[in-house]
Formats: sequence, C-alpha cells, structure tokens
Amino acid sequence: MPLITPIEQGRPDQYKQTLVNFLAGDRNYMKPDLAHGVIEMAHGSGGRAMAELIDQLFLKHFDNRWLQQKQDHATLQTEAGRLAMSTDSHVVSPLFFPGGDIGSLSIYGTVNDVAMSGAQPLYLSAGFVLEEGFPLADLSRIVQSMAAAAREAGVVVVTGDTKVVEKGKADGVYINTTGIGFIPETLELSPTRICPGDKILINGPIGNHGVAILSRRENLAFESDIRSDLQPLNHLVAAMTEAVPGIHFLRDPTRGGVAASLNELAHQGGFAMSLEEAALKIDDSVRAVVELLGLDPLYIANEGKLLAFCAPEDADRLLQVMQAHPQGRNTTVIGEVQVGQAGVVSLNTRFGGKRLVDWRYSDPLPRIC
Amino acid sequence: MPLITPIEQGRPDQYKQTLVNFLAGDRNYMKPDLAHGVIEMAHGSGGRAMAELIDQLFLKHFDNRWLQQKQDHATLQTEAGRLAMSTDSHVVSPLFFPGGDIGSLSIYGTVNDVAMSGAQPLYLSAGFVLEEGFPLADLSRIVQSMAAAAREAGVVVVTGDTKVVEKGKADGVYINTTGIGFIPETLELSPTRICPGDKILINGPIGNHGVAILSRRENLAFESDIRSDLQPLNHLVAAMTEAVPGIHFLRDPTRGGVAASLNELAHQGGFAMSLEEAALKIDDSVRAVVELLGLDPLYIANEGKLLAFCAPEDADRLLQVMQAHPQGRNTTVIGEVQVGQAGVVSLNTRFGGKRLVDWRYSDPLPRIC
Repeated sequence: MPLITPIEQGRPDQYKQTLVNFLAGDRNYMKPDLAHGVIEMAHGSGGRAMAELIDQLFLKHFDNRWLQQKQDHATLQTEAGRLAMSTDSHVVSPLFFPGGDIGSLSIYGTVNDVAMSGAQPLYLSAGFVLEEGFPLADLSRIVQSMAAAAREAGVVVVTGDTKVVEKGKADGVYINTTGIGFIPETLELSPTRICPGDKILINGPIGNHGVAILSRRENLAFESDIRSDLQPLNHLVAAMTEAVPGIHFLRDPTRGGVAASLNELAHQGGFAMSLEEAALKIDDSVRAVVELLGLDPLYIANEGKLLAFCAPEDADRLLQVMQAHPQGRNTTVIGEVQVGQAGVVSLNTRFGGKRLVDWRYSDPLPRIC
Repeated sequence: MPLITPIEQGRPDQYKQTLVNFLAGDRNYMKPDLAHGVIEMAHGSGGRAMAELIDQLFLKHFDNRWLQQKQDHATLQTEAGRLAMSTDSHVVSPLFFPGGDIGSLSIYGTVNDVAMSGAQPLYLSAGFVLEEGFPLADLSRIVQSMAAAAREAGVVVVTGDTKVVEKGKADGVYINTTGIGFIPETLELSPTRICPGDKILINGPIGNHGVAILSRRENLAFESDIRSDLQPLNHLVAAMTEAVPGIHFLRDPTRGGVAASLNELAHQGGFAMSLEEAALKIDDSVRAVVELLGLDPLYIANEGKLLAFCAPEDADRLLQVMQAHPQGRNTTVIGEVQVGQAGVVSLNTRFGGKRLVDWRYSDPLPRIC
C-alpha cells in the first residue's frame, strides 16, 4: 500500500506564494520577511519555515559555535567533561491525550533531547506559564504525571518557576523544561559523522503521537485505540551506546516527523538519503486514519522514537541490541545515506517505484508538543 | 515622609475570605484548594499565594532536596564542582518598557538568579512561545536585545526552542531562559547561614522596575522619566564575593519586592527582621507615583537589585566594595536580622514609629517579569 501524499495544510495564500516563487526559481522563497512579516503557525512546525526563521533570526544574532551545530542540545565543555543542555517549551493541545499529557510530555521531551547527545539526563528545570482560571485539579494531575515520568526516566526536577497570565492569554498551561547531563567520554555523536554508506535505524512504527493528539482535537475528535508513543529514550540510548560506542548520530523525529529530521540532516550534510517503504513500520490503526485524512505518516510527529545512524558494519549489532530492549523491540533498518544530490531524501516504494520525500514549509499538525 | 500602606490589589472576594479566615484563626487560610480551586493571578505574584501553591503542589510531588532548599536556583554537585541552575519564564506586559524589554529581561532575570548562588553564569537556553500574527520586526528587536544583554553579562545562549500558538492563545511572546554556572569553592551562600545580628544591604533605590512597567500599561499609561532598574548583577556579585567570601546570602527582590523576599526568608529561618525607613532609597519620581496610586514600594518588583546578608563585622567592607562598583553606587545598609517573633518583618519609620511589613497574599502588579 503506497504512502499517500498529503494535502498541504499551511495557509493557502502562503503556500501559493511559496509555490509561485519556487516555480520562478527564487531560492529565497522560504526566507522570512523580517521587516514586514508576522509569525505563522508554520514557524513552530518542524518544517522548513522554522528552520529558516532560526537561521535568519536566532543563529544570526546569537551567533556562536554551539547554536551553529544546529542540534536540539548544546555540548558544553567543563572540567567534569562534556555537559549536554537542551530546552523545550511544551504547548501541546489538548493537554491530556491517549498515552500521556503535557506533564509526561514535558519530561520525556527534554529527557529525549538530552539523551540524543549520548548523555544520561540528570537534572531538569520546569517553568510553568499558567492561565488564570485553570483548574488546580488539572494542574495537580499534570504535576503528578511529571513526577511519575521523572522517576521513570531517572531524572530530578531540581528548580522551577511559576508565572500566571490573564484568562485568554494562554491555553491552560505551557511548560518549559530544560535538562542537563554528562556525555560519556567514549562517545562522539555528531551530524558531521554521518557519511554515505551509513545505515539508518528507527526503533518502531511512526506517526502514533501526532495521530493520537489529532484524535482528541476539538474540531476533529474520533474514536480510536491509538495511543501516543511517548516514552523516555535514555535507557535505550544507554544500551545502544554501550554496545556500539562508534555510533555516528541520534535524532528523535518529533515535529515534522521522520521526513523533516532526515531532510534537515541531508541538507546540512550535503548528501542524499534513501528509505525503504517496506521497512517503515506503521500501525494498522494509524494507517487507517492517515489514509482517511490524506496525511503522510513520514511527516507526523513521534515522541518515543529515535533515528540512529551507524557505519554499515555496526548495523547488525545495533539492530540486535535495540530489538532486545523494551523501547526498541520493533526496530528496523529503514534506509541509508548515499552519495547523491545534496539534500535529497527519497523513498523506494513497495511496488518498485521511487518518490521524493521533500522538505516541506510546514508540517500538517500544529501544537503536537 | 512615611511609606503609605497600599490598597489590597488582589481579588476583593479572595481577600475578604482570607481576612475572615485569618481573623477566625484559621492557619490554613492561604492554602490553595487543590480539589476545587482555580489558578488566580495571585499564584504568579511573589506573595504568599505563590509560596503556598509551590509548597502544596510542586514541592510535594517533585519532593527532592534541591527544591526543598526553596531557592531560585538549584546547586548540583558535579565532578567539576557545584553547578548552579536556574529557570525563569518571562511573561512581562508590555513587551517593551522604559529601560528594557522582554528580551533583555529574559537574559538578566536568569543571569541574576544564577548569580545569587555566587556562580558566574555561563550558558543560557532560550525557549520561545510565539503568538501567531506577532510581527517579525518586533521579534527581531527582542532577539537583538537578548543578544546585546548576553554580551553585557558575558553569557552565551547555547540552545533554544521555538513554539507557535494560535492568535489569542498567548500575548505576543513568552520567553523561558534557563542558566547554568559554576559556584567558586570558597563560597557558601545559603539562607541557613542567615542569623540574628546579620546586616542587610541593598544596592540602590527600590520600586523602579514595577513602576516603569506600570507607566506603560494600557489601562494606566502616564508620562514619567522612570526607567526600570534592569541590569545584570553577576559582575557586582563577583566583586562582592571576592572581597567578602564569608558573605551569608544573596537574593534579588523581584516579584513581591523587598517585602516578599524578606518575609519569606524570615518565615523560613524563624527569626525577625528590622528595617530602617531612612536607609531605604526611593527615587523622587518613583515616590511621587506610588504615593499617588497608594502603592508601597517595599512590595514593588526590582530587576537590578540584590539583598545581601552578612555578619556585622563584614558589613563595612561589603558596603565599601558595593559602593565602589558601577552597579552598587547607591548601596545602603537597610536593616538587620534579629532574635524575635519568627517571620516578623518590621520597619522603623523616619518619625520613630514602627510598622509591620507583612507577607501579603499577592503583590499589587501582575506580569512585571
């Protein structure tokens, strides 16, 4: 069954203009207009609009070597070794969804970002922006969920902050978490180590998180047994890096899904990537929903998945270790890095065809994390 | 001129109930009702409502020794020494105000929280929650302000995150910053070191930040030359701790002002504190506004001030060093810690009177940081 190309979900006018500019050969067509433009939902998606905004605004003014690495964490040299630091503001809507809530998401989201550096996450901060009128019973449930998630991941919330804004100036609660942990000396995970020939692995089926959120959206609630794949990945990463310390790179394909993560890496590294549709697992229930709605699971967010890049000779061992771990039982090798046109990600379909997995301006589901 | 006792600015019904319960001798009168209550603006103020919410909810569920210290930062033991970590979500309204904006505030706010541990802040993360439709030109101005503030404080923004919410679900932009730095081995700043006899110093006049924000509020804009006292305090702290390494404790009196900071410390430590009105500096322009509006500057937020506690024999040297520093020229000794009724902060007026500086449920100005 072929993966279905989705309907473009961004603003029609923006999309049309983007397309017109693209067809006219304008290479700046995705750059934000900093003088006259405004923030669009696309700037918070995992797509190219966000990447361009970060490049043109944040990297430009905060110009430093840590941000230039364009990772979801910074690696900081200290006398005690390399410290990984990562931050995430969580604005998921709705706050409670099948398989989790904003509380567990805010812990695992940052735990996973820190873990992608190879570090064991140790300490987290938590900053709350609360909306006036938000029920304390809901807040209590969220805080308890955070505490349980922190225990599960083996991290401690050591410092925090609470702000309140007037009713109508937020959406219940937003939670920022920032995490730190030390990276073992033996590891050197970096996008610069990805090279042609590398195998690409993922620890299970894709799209569950985004579709679980979608199933509870006010304007499109539907009955299903789909649960978010939300889970901490640090224990899995520890098993992987212990068995295969030479692993090249890890990334969790959250906003924008597998497609956005791979496109960004292929674009930055100047190589091509090829995926095998037959190796990409998608749960039947997820497949049913995405086909109905015309969504492409490659662009849908995950919250308990990681993409691993390793040398071909390490792939079997890594696959074995991942499959032996509770968080990696359904791991498959989904593709490889190739010499080829820089930034091009393609998919070999089940029927012997080939299609482009392009880097979209936006992703179809806003506020999934 | 005596300091004027302010009108209670919280919700009248809540205040009345609080008062009724207080008069009835109910010691739980300020505890949040976690089953049926809702978030009030007071829960984000620096007053007692926030302290109670933190106690009853966050400390209870995240139960750990770092949070139990009830500081604005956590001190984490690492192989490279003690790491200080602090987080703040900034929701100031309006975004631009005399003397600063949400960008510089988000940098200095966290720099100062880290500095209060005695650490030199090194690295910051920045998490943005952006509202759809927010002008990119304003965002650009804010990011440039952050970059300039980071340079001034000598810190680097090493990692970040960008989220977007629908129009009407935020208020332009909220910024979380989380900062880290290492604490010099020679220092041991802790509220547990405050003891009767300690002198209390502050590095200048109070109330400027809150009144500067107030002067630009939509419902109460007025012309004045009052500017926020927003400034980085880490350079001043470095000079202070080098000259007087035995200093007991530092705190920046932000939300809730000097009154909330001192009440919380007196309450936790079980001692009394006495202030001298004649030693408390208040700019004439600030005094004119607070008298007109019936506000008490002791409860108004500062963003460039610190309270220092030291042994009486260190006070002269500390005063000298602070007054010699650009950020401490107007330092005065404003009072002392005393054996007395636990948690009682009092003020000796210019006219030889004495009044209670109580721990209020809320502070009068929401969203000042």
